[in-house]
Amino acid sequence: MLDHKQVKSITWKDGKLYLLDQTLLPIAVKVEEQMSVEQVWDSIKQLKVRGAPAIGVAGAYGLVVAMQDKSHLNREAFLAELQEKAAYLDSSRPTAVNLSWALKRTVKSVETSGGQSGAELLECLTKTAEEIHAEDIELCRKIGEHGVELIKDGMGLLTHCNAGRLATSEYGTATAPMYLAQERGVSFRVYSDESRPLLQGSRLTAWELLHAGVDVTTITDNMAAFVMQQGLIDMVIVGTDRVAANGDVANKIGTLGVAVLAAYFKIPVYVACPASTVDLSTPTGKEIFIEERGEDEVTHFGQRRTAPEGIKVRNPAFDVTPHELVAGIITDRGLIRAPYQENLHKIFGE
Amino acid sequence: MLDHKQVKSITWKDGKLYLLDQTLLPIAVKVEEQMSVEQVWDSIKQLKVRGAPAIGVAGAYGLVVAMQDKSHLNREAFLAELQEKAAYLDSSRPTAVNLSWALKRTVKSVETSGGQSGAELLECLTKTAEEIHAEDIELCRKIGEHGVELIKDGMGLLTHCNAGRLATSEYGTATAPMYLAQERGVSFRVYSDESRPLLQGSRLTAWELLHAGVDVTTITDNMAAFVMQQGLIDMVIVGTDRVAANGDVANKIGTLGVAVLAAYFKIPVYVACPASTVDLSTPTGKEIFIEERGEDEVTHFGQRRTAPEGIKVRNPAFDVTPHELVAGIITDRGLIRAPYQENLHKIFGE
Repeated sequence: MLDHKQVKSITWKDGKLYLLDQTLLPIAVKVEEQMSVEQVWDSIKQLKVRGAPAIGVAGAYGLVVAMQDKSHLNREAFLAELQEKAAYLDSSRPTAVNLSWALKRTVKSVETSGGQSGAELLECLTKTAEEIHAEDIELCRKIGEHGVELIKDGMGLLTHCNAGRLATSEYGTATAPMYLAQERGVSFRVYSDESRPLLQGSRLTAWELLHAGVDVTTITDNMAAFVMQQGLIDMVIVGTDRVAANGDVANKIGTLGVAVLAAYFKIPVYVACPASTVDLSTPTGKEIFIEERGEDEVTHFGQRRTAPEGIKVRNPAFDVTPHELVAGIITDRGLIRAPYQENLHKIFGE
Repeated sequence: MLDHKQVKSITWKDGKLYLLDQTLLPIAVKVEEQMSVEQVWDSIKQLKVRGAPAIGVAGAYGLVVAMQDKSHLNREAFLAELQEKAAYLDSSRPTAVNLSWALKRTVKSVETSGGQSGAELLECLTKTAEEIHAEDIELCRKIGEHGVELIKDGMGLLTHCNAGRLATSEYGTATAPMYLAQERGVSFRVYSDESRPLLQGSRLTAWELLHAGVDVTTITDNMAAFVMQQGLIDMVIVGTDRVAANGDVANKIGTLGVAVLAAYFKIPVYVACPASTVDLSTPTGKEIFIEERGEDEVTHFGQRRTAPEGIKVRNPAFDVTPHELVAGIITDRGLIRAPYQENLHKIFGE
């Protein structure tokens, strides 16, 4: 088994950036040194690195890779080149808010630094990228700390999709309490839904937990009710893409189903996320737009057709779980309980 | 679009047996004339014909195919050969109770007939196979008649796995009310769960409903909650492998999840089956043994690995839905409602 320290999504070591090629998982584990900004662009574009926080960190380091041989430039030329490279990297995934945010923050920190020489500016650039990276790790660790005490010895957990370390720099969000519980020697089992149509559960979550030495079992999505009925699940922990002001939660398609099943079998459902995911400007889940993705994801498996030609398809990427099915929201600022309208405003309302 | 009359699982015409090769669905529609008893054995073995009722009918006709050129034999020689071929066909799927039952019934009817010549015995054999075929059609049609009035204009239905025409001679079980509603001009929509791991929903149910001209949409299993939440589903109809005396229902893995979701969204769940599926000797669902199938079905898709090497897997083939989640059991002898303990005994108790 691989040492899980070796298989981070992003590694920054001795001034070099390494990315795990997640498109090859779970078949092969390949860590690629990023030799050029074009390679970083390509890695983001091709989803070799994925997950909002991880993309942001990779983008910031991508700027360092872009500027490493530009320390001979003067301030003006360095900044011009930096801005150009930031715009270029931003075009790799135009809808990734975290990427855009990380690139802007990095450029701004360099611009507002007192550095005059290219060498000074490069130093500032590198420092900012390392800060963004460290903050992401710290954020996830805090989520873990606010959730770890929920996990007791002997418990069975169920998770859906991948809100794991692979989507962040370390720890992940839904997985952060698990990794911290593991660090503390708590013994628990995890059931990982495969998460059709794109199978992030079996391809990514099962892989990362297995390689971290966690006791993990993979099941198809429609087996969740069975394992709950058998008494194997004591808690559900999932990630989220957006939490509305009333506590309604948007997450990968299938999360709503898991939450309804958990309610029937009297199992608490926890949602883990960084503060930035709580969106108080969205009053309820009803206002969250649900993207529908291409039909091929449902009618095919990889290249192989599994549903008949001409069939109608629904392929919502997300669903909305009503807040009454959520036992708590685990954030880097604390574990939020109902009433969510009130308690989310209290913590995130300024 | 194919005329759906052309794509029955089993066709018997002018003394010739044709089977639809269901292993090629939904990619290709290939109907194969069965030229020998060995070919019929192979078709059953390879699951080209599948579904308990369809296998029984195919087995009975398989005996006719085996004996068609044996009409020159005398009674004794004919019966000896018939028994040998029946034992041979029975070995194609040893656990298929319907196959065994159909072969025994056919052999017995020939043995007890007054026929002396091979020609007379062959005629009796053929007549019995045709009877079994006609009875299967009639049984499914009656299920349809007892369920058709549940389907009203404008309704959305959800079904899981394949309890369709492909698994029987015609009409299917869960699909029988749908096909009858269609015959009567009722307008309705069907959502078909893909039914991982083996995808009988997208490969078979979606295919057969589409080709019958029914308005059908395929979804992954974990989208069922979403379409229910959107108000698109008014009724669930599924098949079953066994109904216990208290009304608990064993069916394809995922049925329990669908039933729990339906309860949450206040959608009635109906279960359709022939009388032979009601097993009063099994007191409750707890006594039903749940077979676990091979890990590869969950860790792979076709030949392609989708979960990591070394991962733990659960792969229960069935689950048990408690009777309190079932709104009614649609059988060829009528629509049974709760209290099931009492009402199942009333109808099936002799």
